[in-house]
Amino acid sequence: MTDEAPAGRATVDEAGAGRRAMTGAEEGRWMHALVERLYPLCRSITGDGVRRTLEIIAESVRLRVREVPTGTQVLDWTVPREWNIRDAYVKDAAGTRVIDFAASTLHVVGYSVPVSATMTLEELRGHLHTLPEQPGLIPYRTGYYAETWGFCLAHETLEGLGEGPYEVVIDSMLADGHLTYGEYVVPGRVPEEVLVSCHVCHPSLANDNLAGAAVAVRLARRLAETDPWYTYRFLFAPGTIGAITWLARNRERTSRIRHGLVLACAGDRGPLTYKRSRRGDAGIDRAVRHVLRTSGREHTVVDFSPYGYDERQFCSPGFDLPVGSLTRTPYAGYPEYHTSADNPDFVSPEAMLETLETCWEVTRVLEGDRRYLNLSPYGEPQLGRRGLYGALGGRSDTRQAQMAMLWVLNLSDGRHSLLDIAERSDLPFAVVADAARALRDAGLLKECAL
Amino acid sequence: MTDEAPAGRATVDEAGAGRRAMTGAEEGRWMHALVERLYPLCRSITGDGVRRTLEIIAESVRLRVREVPTGTQVLDWTVPREWNIRDAYVKDAAGTRVIDFAASTLHVVGYSVPVSATMTLEELRGHLHTLPEQPGLIPYRTGYYAETWGFCLAHETLEGLGEGPYEVVIDSMLADGHLTYGEYVVPGRVPEEVLVSCHVCHPSLANDNLAGAAVAVRLARRLAETDPWYTYRFLFAPGTIGAITWLARNRERTSRIRHGLVLACAGDRGPLTYKRSRRGDAGIDRAVRHVLRTSGREHTVVDFSPYGYDERQFCSPGFDLPVGSLTRTPYAGYPEYHTSADNPDFVSPEAMLETLETCWEVTRVLEGDRRYLNLSPYGEPQLGRRGLYGALGGRSDTRQAQMAMLWVLNLSDGRHSLLDIAERSDLPFAVVADAARALRDAGLLKECAL
Amino acid sequence: MTDEAPAGRATVDEAGAGRRAMTGAEEGRWMHALVERLYPLCRSITGDGVRRTLEIIAESVRLRVREVPTGTQVLDWTVPREWNIRDAYVKDAAGTRVIDFAASTLHVVGYSVPVSATMTLEELRGHLHTLPEQPGLIPYRTGYYAETWGFCLAHETLEGLGEGPYEVVIDSMLADGHLTYGEYVVPGRVPEEVLVSCHVCHPSLANDNLAGAAVAVRLARRLAETDPWYTYRFLFAPGTIGAITWLARNRERTSRIRHGLVLACAGDRGPLTYKRSRRGDAGIDRAVRHVLRTSGREHTVVDFSPYGYDERQFCSPGFDLPVGSLTRTPYAGYPEYHTSADNPDFVSPEAMLETLETCWEVTRVLEGDRRYLNLSPYGEPQLGRRGLYGALGGRSDTRQAQMAMLWVLNLSDGRHSLLDIAERSDLPFAVVADAARALRDAGLLKECAL
Repeated sequence: MTDEAPAGRATVDEAGAGRRAMTGAEEGRWMHALVERLYPLCRSITGDGVRRTLEIIAESVRLRVREVPTGTQVLDWTVPREWNIRDAYVKDAAGTRVIDFAASTLHVVGYSVPVSATMTLEELRGHLHTLPEQPGLIPYRTGYYAETWGFCLAHETLEGLGEGPYEVVIDSMLADGHLTYGEYVVPGRVPEEVLVSCHVCHPSLANDNLAGAAVAVRLARRLAETDPWYTYRFLFAPGTIGAITWLARNRERTSRIRHGLVLACAGDRGPLTYKRSRRGDAGIDRAVRHVLRTSGREHTVVDFSPYGYDERQFCSPGFDLPVGSLTRTPYAGYPEYHTSADNPDFVSPEAMLETLETCWEVTRVLEGDRRYLNLSPYGEPQLGRRGLYGALGGRSDTRQAQMAMLWVLNLSDGRHSLLDIAERSDLPFAVVADAARALRDAGLLKECAL
Repeated sequence: MTDEAPAGRATVDEAGAGRRAMTGAEEGRWMHALVERLYPLCRSITGDGVRRTLEIIAESVRLRVREVPTGTQVLDWTVPREWNIRDAYVKDAAGTRVIDFAASTLHVVGYSVPVSATMTLEELRGHLHTLPEQPGLIPYRTGYYAETWGFCLAHETLEGLGEGPYEVVIDSMLADGHLTYGEYVVPGRVPEEVLVSCHVCHPSLANDNLAGAAVAVRLARRLAETDPWYTYRFLFAPGTIGAITWLARNRERTSRIRHGLVLACAGDRGPLTYKRSRRGDAGIDRAVRHVLRTSGREHTVVDFSPYGYDERQFCSPGFDLPVGSLTRTPYAGYPEYHTSADNPDFVSPEAMLETLETCWEVTRVLEGDRRYLNLSPYGEPQLGRRGLYGALGGRSDTRQAQMAMLWVLNLSDGRHSLLDIAERSDLPFAVVADAARALRDAGLLKECAL
Repeated sequence: MTDEAPAGRATVDEAGAGRRAMTGAEEGRWMHALVERLYPLCRSITGDGVRRTLEIIAESVRLRVREVPTGTQVLDWTVPREWNIRDAYVKDAAGTRVIDFAASTLHVVGYSVPVSATMTLEELRGHLHTLPEQPGLIPYRTGYYAETWGFCLAHETLEGLGEGPYEVVIDSMLADGHLTYGEYVVPGRVPEEVLVSCHVCHPSLANDNLAGAAVAVRLARRLAETDPWYTYRFLFAPGTIGAITWLARNRERTSRIRHGLVLACAGDRGPLTYKRSRRGDAGIDRAVRHVLRTSGREHTVVDFSPYGYDERQFCSPGFDLPVGSLTRTPYAGYPEYHTSADNPDFVSPEAMLETLETCWEVTRVLEGDRRYLNLSPYGEPQLGRRGLYGALGGRSDTRQAQMAMLWVLNLSDGRHSLLDIAERSDLPFAVVADAARALRDAGLLKECAL
């Protein structure tokens, strides 16, 4: 088996980074720099673009890279041949490259078979893809499962082309090889897992999905600096076939997944969007909604639909995992989507940081949620004599912390978790969790068995 | 027993009509012509007006007419004496009929006992009914279960009447006889039934309910041209006592009724209104709501109330049948209601056609709804290699049909029917059903046992 | 045991009052007069102020007054020492009382320990409480469980004070004694109870809560004139510690409580507010919501929160009683709250009467709610021949009473109570109950066993 080669060690000492935590602004800039570094690579669902992407990610987290051979049966699919490309261009009679892969990886249709021919514009036209309504932008197109080839270019470039003839070259290779994906695990105190997944198969597109990968890396770094309860598994894999391959190879492990998030479109300047899991009321659905509601951040929560990113696979009916999807502007919802305008300028350090903070706060809820039992459930316990309450009565100002204590005492009957209490009281989870801690320390609560 | 006389054969060959299907516009005109033809008849809850109405309907569908004798106990009620009327008028001293039954059947209070007398306006006044706030219209009044008589007239006519004396004649007959109703059954592949009921007891009122009867006839004709799964039973009966009589005589059959619709006020130009069954979430309730929501037609859906048409009887607590009511402007909701302004001009071919199409689409949902099981539930099956999906990826335009396939695959876990899927995805039922068919044909779904 | 001393007999003959029922306007004035009479007393959670308050209430209802000794363990609390006060003032060099307890009981912080000293304004300042943003008002402050003392005064009074020195006297006594509360019970035909509770521990504050006590007294008087089904228990007790004491001494009795209301802030001119019980859908929650909705009175219904009045204790998780809270403007929701502006002018006879009528109507629902079984459930019974329905059909005007009959018949399947029916039909409970009575008397309904 060649598919378990551990990837390069992290070059940054993790424990050291833990001690010298970045500020949020530094993390934002760090993520944006990662997006810029990964942007020029020509990724596809297989090939060296993904491999190189994972190597760069592995500089920050101790990634295990998996290689799965072409032809491997994975659920209803088969791992395809591996695609690699060295060069591609359309050259006019004067020798000028009028379309040049070196200028943008988007210029070549993904999985194009090799071509070397001379043809007129008329003959070439059926292989050219443009966006007439966005004439300055290069579209992104692929043809994974069709033996075809093509070029993508700005419509205004097309309109400037003469009749030819043109030298047309795609120096690509479609051959047996591997599908590559990477996993990074932050071990927790229990084997139950939280899955964070992002696709790494798109070529030079920043928001879709280098931003998602960058946020995942930072989230992983933050979690690695903690001693988490759950085991966190980060998956960096090609879209669809990568998730399917992982699921095929980890069927039994899926029963351990308690919560999951598919991260995508994590860096544009639009408001946050959470798409619920197929279950609709899974813990992750409630945790993300709560974090968004109490964060004050502009956001939308939408119901599951079987279209979008790899939540399609995780939420297929045979698995039906509690996995939602966090994006900013959702899938296909912005004009820059799948065009050359989705470049590093389209994503901002601030937006990625906000996405990261949201993910982090969600992990705070997942980690901190539990049930307590009020040990003094008949009437309110006298908080004052335990130093938990202002001694001077009759004042109308009520502090959030005291409200949280009253809510925790009132609802800690064994049926309500801290998240339940935070939702019902509309208080931030952290405030509720702090109140519970204070009450537990005062001997008024005990933790329920799981 | 004289109550089972089969009514006249249909004069139009049904199979022939099936082959030469009318266009929608033709059906609209056909229904309006039927309303115009039935309009002059003096119907009541018993008598020759109903009999003649059923004869005319029987020209189009193979109606079985039932005759139930006066005095028959039906649930809590007794079949009343049969009422017939030849003539009625109020004649002034000059011999002019100032109120004349021949001009409108509404002029006589239904079930009026015979009268032949001379009296002043003062003496007559207690027997006259007008609408002072709609002075140009004749009201509709009946007194089925009170031994009384009366005339209805326009308030402005009343104001023009002198002191009299008047010759007052009602040449009616109230005697033992029968209550008459008609049934038409389109046999299905299963004995479970869909009931469509409309009242035929109102005299010259077009929307209430000749339009409903006309829509029912066309719906029956359409269904007869199919090979339906359910058995469809059409009931043309007097309101209240007719439905009660049918229920009394078909108690055991009611357990076969899977879905039902009471059709009334089907031709006015207002938007469609569906009133839910008492159950509120019966299959018919969901099917009609779905059809209305995805049709783009203006409409309202309201909760059940025990007031209106014969859903009152079908939804009485002892039966509690899954029967809703479809109208346009609902019961008593328009100023023309129960007046001479509810004439054939008040109903339109277009409105009746829209009501008919709605009913038809509802039957398409009832007929087509079923559960499938996704045979490839782990991850998405690869639609592309089965020719079910566009081969060129990366495009953001998603077609309704492909969305429907994804939804059907995602929710076909044995718990969701196609209607469930159509509701959750907000896609038209027909699109969802087509997608399911394509997936089944590709071997990806199998039908669940009922 | 000295704590069971029956309080003074009612000076007004109850049966006599029963025969000569007051008009609503008289009741409004009566309640306002009671507020004015109770207003000057210096109440606290213990002491003679509460005792005198209960004596005055006992002139109207046969109150049983309970005395519970200092040091008694009650749930998580201990009955505190008893506090009484004779006089208190701050006197300037000229001998003028610049702060004078005799002018307002609010001037002294509740539970202030005795003081007799001379000090400068500077030294005194840490013991002075004002409302700088409401400079003309005296705040209300207490310090039950802290050994402290203080004065409350208008901020503008404070600003007029010179440097002193001042003679500072609080002639109070904090010593072992008793906690006092009163109960009045209207016996019902069943031992199941309805609890009405109001706090009587606030000194000169009218809306909070003399108005609540006044409404409770009138409600008790009205109920005493009936022969109720439920046993009604009225509790007049100090807030928090009083409710906790009662709960501690009546643990087993709490299982009898079927419904309960905490009455407070019952007299201001704001709209009515009902706060649901912790359960959220208890009978009392549904009854009050129904009464408010069908009353036409402006109102709000809010969810339970563990903050406010003694619903906090009754709804603590160990008891979780079906007890809601009825106020006008809720707890701490008005600028006069806990200030000298909450005086008898702040509450009106009309507002108290409206609160009383609401409570009364709620008791009408609780008393009258039951389940019936339709004895003629197949189809509608023929109401006409039983004289229950207008004999002349065809009219579009439907009377509320007839709608109520149809709803009662339709939903009396053993699963729906009259309140269920009133809620679903949106008809006033009284109309539904009247219809049920008429139908029962006509032999169409029978009452279900409880």
